[in-house]
Amino acid sequence: MPTAAADLMPFRAMEILKRAKALEAAGRNICHLELGEPGAPPAPKVIEAVRKVLPKVQSYTNAMGMIELRERIAGYYQSQHGVCVHSDNIAATTGSSAGFILAFHAAFTPGARIAITRPGYPAYLNTLVGLGFDPVEIELSAQNGWVLTAADIEAAYARQAFAGLLFASPANPTGAAVDRDGLGEIVACCKKLGVRLISDEIYHGLDYRGPSVSALELGRDAIVINSFSKYYCMTGWRIGWMVVPDELIRRTEMLQQNLFISAPTLSQIAATAALGERDYSEEQKRNYAENRRLLSAGLQDLGFDLEHASDGAFYAYAGIRKFSNDSLAFCSTLLEQAGVAATPGVDFDRRDGHNFVRFSYAGSRETMTMALARMAAFLR
Amino acid sequence: MPTAAADLMPFRAMEILKRAKALEAAGRNICHLELGEPGAPPAPKVIEAVRKVLPKVQSYTNAMGMIELRERIAGYYQSQHGVCVHSDNIAATTGSSAGFILAFHAAFTPGARIAITRPGYPAYLNTLVGLGFDPVEIELSAQNGWVLTAADIEAAYARQAFAGLLFASPANPTGAAVDRDGLGEIVACCKKLGVRLISDEIYHGLDYRGPSVSALELGRDAIVINSFSKYYCMTGWRIGWMVVPDELIRRTEMLQQNLFISAPTLSQIAATAALGERDYSEEQKRNYAENRRLLSAGLQDLGFDLEHASDGAFYAYAGIRKFSNDSLAFCSTLLEQAGVAATPGVDFDRRDGHNFVRFSYAGSRETMTMALARMAAFLR
Repeated sequence: MPTAAADLMPFRAMEILKRAKALEAAGRNICHLELGEPGAPPAPKVIEAVRKVLPKVQSYTNAMGMIELRERIAGYYQSQHGVCVHSDNIAATTGSSAGFILAFHAAFTPGARIAITRPGYPAYLNTLVGLGFDPVEIELSAQNGWVLTAADIEAAYARQAFAGLLFASPANPTGAAVDRDGLGEIVACCKKLGVRLISDEIYHGLDYRGPSVSALELGRDAIVINSFSKYYCMTGWRIGWMVVPDELIRRTEMLQQNLFISAPTLSQIAATAALGERDYSEEQKRNYAENRRLLSAGLQDLGFDLEHASDGAFYAYAGIRKFSNDSLAFCSTLLEQAGVAATPGVDFDRRDGHNFVRFSYAGSRETMTMALARMAAFLR
Repeated sequence: MPTAAADLMPFRAMEILKRAKALEAAGRNICHLELGEPGAPPAPKVIEAVRKVLPKVQSYTNAMGMIELRERIAGYYQSQHGVCVHSDNIAATTGSSAGFILAFHAAFTPGARIAITRPGYPAYLNTLVGLGFDPVEIELSAQNGWVLTAADIEAAYARQAFAGLLFASPANPTGAAVDRDGLGEIVACCKKLGVRLISDEIYHGLDYRGPSVSALELGRDAIVINSFSKYYCMTGWRIGWMVVPDELIRRTEMLQQNLFISAPTLSQIAATAALGERDYSEEQKRNYAENRRLLSAGLQDLGFDLEHASDGAFYAYAGIRKFSNDSLAFCSTLLEQAGVAATPGVDFDRRDGHNFVRFSYAGSRETMTMALARMAAFLR
């Protein structure tokens, strides 16, 4: 049996979305702050690239992905991170979701113990449980800015050894990001302990305090997961990538061939174009940065517990102790009565999440303003 | 350890494709008979439907998929199979590939023993091994037209009990299809033995001897997997669906939420349109039927062992004993010297596949004619 309090659980954000869509279908207006989805479409040139190939046959691609896409991703590591990554080490994946499935089965076998953070992205825990792995949770705290440290990892490992560590920076749901030194210590600590690091870099590009630091800048043992969903506004396209160390390339390729065949072809073409459109993504980021300021200050004013605006991503993970100790009930009432969809903290933290709610500020300015106004009325 | 001779192996068809694409990049002309991919694009109205929504934000959908799509699929079961399936039981999946992953984890836990046929689709065996399940193989024979029978299942179960049975009709690589009585006996046999049936119906619509029979016509315990890849010419779109019994809906939904979030949105929109365009698919089927006749006769003339043209799908699984007892070497030489890409039988049958090659006749008439001419010259 898995070590964490770990049955397979629903992803509450998806359930909130389902209810929100039902309310909309019934004519209600809903402010969507429940899902981490950019409010903008992909860049115009991305759409144009897809439009051009649309009438043609879209066959399977090579299992690891179109070579043009993988070479552009290699170029991204060179230009953004100053590291040389060979396209052979890169696989185009069906979103980061498929990347996790591939990473778990390439580096481990079911039953292996994998450490994750609490709070953390709920699919980490649920995917590990669903696939028969044994997740253990490393507790983070608001006092430490929700940041994972090498000391946390050492302490957890001393209690119970694990084979892998999966963590994200910037993180979901807290937006917490480790700095270069912190990441260096985590990489070194994993190396020392013989723990395979899976670095989820899906929110890279969305750091508000400085450039994102990839685990690849600090060593080559980590599996890196990334995606076009967030920075490139392509959630529904289900396209991401992973970088694997040399010794895992062949197994990753065989798993991809058999488990997925290849990532969606149109999405690979779109992604190739997207990598050339970072200016558009930076425009979106400026909107998130404005929303971040607006929503964080607004939540603080309304009495939510929020020490400071998040380091990255587009989430505010706010304490609700002034209002409720049941985040699920709180979010449900907030949706039904105020038309504001947000995600209960229990999604991200089964022990302490009842005291927290995650608000996404990936939507429009108007959505943030309206949501704050509706919540002000609701909480009165 | 898994029971079948079962390490994770590469999907040779994908490796042949990779080499074929490399040869093409170097200026060679290649006849592609290695992959099960229709030579035509999706129906014009499918392209039109996608073009219309292309500039908009493509968000995640509900985990189980767009309700319009699922209701159309329910309508398909009504009109094509005369059975009432509720849209709640239907999940849109990222190709049949994701359907298998969901089915295995919804109905079983890693370590469970699952029976498959030999020969069979290589991803069955490799996915089961890759995900930590324990596959057992039920041997089929050319003498019996490669058809699985209830007696085969009973005999295999008596040797070694299994929790699940996954099989396809029409089948890959043989094109063999069970008839209504045969399928009824398989469904009844699984029920009697307490074996969960996973019916892979990805080649439905491509039966050349009569209408395809769904396991859903004969009971409601099976998990049914299907896809838009073959009949609707949408391989690279990675979109399929599954039908699950009531008691597996919730677990399937939770797995989908966490493992995949949702299937690609544009592909769901395309698939919804495709279900209204069966006339276009029937046109393609007429081409396959012509190719089937042409290729089967041609292969027989060249001296391949092929008892009769396949019942369904778009494959000829031909014996090569007159030419070689090493299908991998045979296919490699055929590709390099004759420019004809075909898939070695070892992909589908690790024990006896060295004596067989699979030819796909999903391509154009010209490809079939040219491939036969090239092979005639090569085999002389």
